Amino acid sequence: MSLLVTGSIGIDTVETPHGKVQDVLGGSAIYFSLAASMFGPVRLVGVVGADFPEKYLEVFKGRPVDMAGLESRAGSKTFRWHGKYQGDMNSAESIKTDLNVLGEQGPKIPASFVDSKVVFLANTHPALQRELLGKLKSPELVVADTMNLWIDTARDELLKTLSVVHGVVLNDGEARLLTGKKHLMEAGREVLKLGPRFVVIKKGEHGSVLVTRDDSCVLPAYPTAMVIDPTGAGDSFAGGMLGYLASTGKRDGAALRSAIARGTVTASFTIEGFSYTGLVQASRALIDQRLSELHRMVHFD
Amino acid sequence: MSLLVTGSIGIDTVETPHGKVQDVLGGSAIYFSLAASMFGPVRLVGVVGADFPEKYLEVFKGRPVDMAGLESRAGSKTFRWHGKYQGDMNSAESIKTDLNVLGEQGPKIPASFVDSKVVFLANTHPALQRELLGKLKSPELVVADTMNLWIDTARDELLKTLSVVHGVVLNDGEARLLTGKKHLMEAGREVLKLGPRFVVIKKGEHGSVLVTRDDSCVLPAYPTAMVIDPTGAGDSFAGGMLGYLASTGKRDGAALRSAIARGTVTASFTIEGFSYTGLVQASRALIDQRLSELHRMVHFD
Repeated sequence: MSLLVTGSIGIDTVETPHGKVQDVLGGSAIYFSLAASMFGPVRLVGVVGADFPEKYLEVFKGRPVDMAGLESRAGSKTFRWHGKYQGDMNSAESIKTDLNVLGEQGPKIPASFVDSKVVFLANTHPALQRELLGKLKSPELVVADTMNLWIDTARDELLKTLSVVHGVVLNDGEARLLTGKKHLMEAGREVLKLGPRFVVIKKGEHGSVLVTRDDSCVLPAYPTAMVIDPTGAGDSFAGGMLGYLASTGKRDGAALRSAIARGTVTASFTIEGFSYTGLVQASRALIDQRLSELHRMVHFD
Repeated sequence: MSLLVTGSIGIDTVETPHGKVQDVLGGSAIYFSLAASMFGPVRLVGVVGADFPEKYLEVFKGRPVDMAGLESRAGSKTFRWHGKYQGDMNSAESIKTDLNVLGEQGPKIPASFVDSKVVFLANTHPALQRELLGKLKSPELVVADTMNLWIDTARDELLKTLSVVHGVVLNDGEARLLTGKKHLMEAGREVLKLGPRFVVIKKGEHGSVLVTRDDSCVLPAYPTAMVIDPTGAGDSFAGGMLGYLASTGKRDGAALRSAIARGTVTASFTIEGFSYTGLVQASRALIDQRLSELHRMVHFD
């Protein structure tokens, strides 16, 4: 099934206890696409400014990512983010955020993309998420991400978006903020009341929880030896998850479980290097190897 | 195989967001024994003061817990603890700790207990843990717990104890403090260098990690609907774990995995009520039911 992602493309500066990288490629659409492309073709929709260095796109060479939806907007500047991770690196402090082109109108969806069946609406204003979704003809599996900012400042819009998507991915803090429930299973069940058929709550180094109307699944994170830079882990998770689902065409409970396991191991590569350097070390074979290890890790009789 | 626990018996006052209980039965040996007795017989070694209400022991009626090692010391007072859990309840603030009889000489081990094969040395001064262990004839599987206090103030004694035990259970903060390693797998491997063949790192609501010389296992916590009082969760975990191992007589990697799964679900009952009221709702049948659920929860293809 065809897979489309709409999300940010940015120029990041990131500091972690392991070092600092300046002006590197980032953004949810980038991490998602690279991750999903390990499983099958991806259609990328996003917008950059005239300052965006074309060489940044070389990382997509040889990968099945259709860039027809990448708009370069003359007279605009690319989204920039400067973040810093400290201590356990479970969350970033935003030192500087320049929305730039992301503060303007949303990206266009090319005619060749409107038949996309599996859709990831990466984090952006929930009204824009719905606007983008509205341009697609017959999406069959739509998953949205969001963030604290929209939960706080655009709750009504967010609730409308949640009512029209099939799945949502949130981190634990967002799930608690959205629902007012501290207990994650309870928070998950509350989210389902808002519309989605499933919710994935990401807990960083502690793994993730999948809650559906009749099922739940809890998976630890794959224990990587070195966490260098957590940026993009969540979008890589979503990319691995939806890349897998799109490639199999399945959407039942068992497939969702398989999918979050793929998301888990895909994200484990991302955090092993700055920017996308960890993620691009991954391959389908290495992903399968970590899947076996994860499988063994959670096994008991 | 015969199973012995040495640990505290206390009178607790506990406050959580769900309420407050005053002067209730607590202590590591209590939680461990109740938990382990779901799997087979347990020998309890501990000391209380003359103020200890005999009726507190009624909870052991009909359970295979041999109380021959329970010493009631005339002229002494029972250990008392007043703790308060707030927010996510992942750790308690100690409002008051009266060591009382625990500050005196250690408990005696009855002659009928010295042939015990599986031993849990619950948290106490590491020198006392070794002293108690020295009184046993031929223990085959010895597991110790410890705490920040001893890591900080009696590290040399603790290192000596770690060098003579087979396994150790720690929480995540203790593992990091002991080893200086932030990453739990790394911390686990460092602990193994100190002597033990395996280490279990407990992460509260995030489950636990088992690290052995050639294996690792990561399990989420069983997601209970209501966390009322986390007191005793760690000792119940150890009780379920060692109760299972003692009942099967196995000690290989697969058995350790099975054992931490039993520990996980046993502890899930403990936190559902104040003091031991949650734990005593458990039965072997209910434990097996949660085991199946946990099994299903972590399953993926």
